[in-house]
Amino acid sequence: MLKGINPILTPELLMHLCAMGHGEWVAVVDANFTANYLANGKPLVRLPGLSLERVSEAVLSVLPLATDVAQPAAIMHVCHSEAAHRTDAQHGVIQLVQKSGFGPDQVEALERYDFYEKIKTASLIVQTGEGTAYGNALFCKGVILL
Amino acid sequence: MLKGINPILTPELLMHLCAMGHGEWVAVVDANFTANYLANGKPLVRLPGLSLERVSEAVLSVLPLATDVAQPAAIMHVCHSEAAHRTDAQHGVIQLVQKSGFGPDQVEALERYDFYEKIKTASLIVQTGEGTAYGNALFCKGVILL
Repeated sequence: MLKGINPILTPELLMHLCAMGHGEWVAVVDANFTANYLANGKPLVRLPGLSLERVSEAVLSVLPLATDVAQPAAIMHVCHSEAAHRTDAQHGVIQLVQKSGFGPDQVEALERYDFYEKIKTASLIVQTGEGTAYGNALFCKGVILL
Repeated sequence: MLKGINPILTPELLMHLCAMGHGEWVAVVDANFTANYLANGKPLVRLPGLSLERVSEAVLSVLPLATDVAQPAAIMHVCHSEAAHRTDAQHGVIQLVQKSGFGPDQVEALERYDFYEKIKTASLIVQTGEGTAYGNALFCKGVILL
């Protein structure tokens, strides 16, 4: 642990988040997600027992969302549901994005297989203990100007 | 880089600092220090071009100093100098320790070979670009209560 840093950010997770550059994506996925297969060798950090919202909150406490991308966050849309349908866990992610100063429409709802395709371009996957279905999110890192 | 975290803390340095537990020591040493030899396989992170003070400031921005150790910081005493003698770089370290709420007498002045012995117990060595002699310090990590 470190002063002023969310304590669920493990040493390895902090390292990988810090190593990401502007425009790179991190995925935060649920406990059932095919994380290891889709990681395909890229960094995969596991935080069992912790919800999508709690892990997303920790990630967004240190990761600025990109302001030069129309939708710097994404969730996986529930198959065969109405376009506006969101699960409770997804609502949690949307609220976190709003707390970061973005609108709810800046969270893209990706269809399942589009989400799988997009996650292939991510730099890092964090697998949580989220037990609900479709409990996955993607976040795009922004710049930090000094 | 990450939001709210000193930008000279590299991904690997953040990881190693975060992985340290209560009572472990980190050494911040100058550019001439026998860092690689004394690291002897333990983590060694290099920050060339940066002073002892700047790197110590970054380390102490995330590392709480131990409150259950009489002297949670140390510098290397200049050989054959008066007991109270400190270099400018060492004064910088002492001021940083004071800013963390500790007294200047809580920075131990270790003789050169005692410093070498103590560094063997450290968990991590950070080699700076400090160009002045005796530009070395040791810090003991404290607890973070949640």
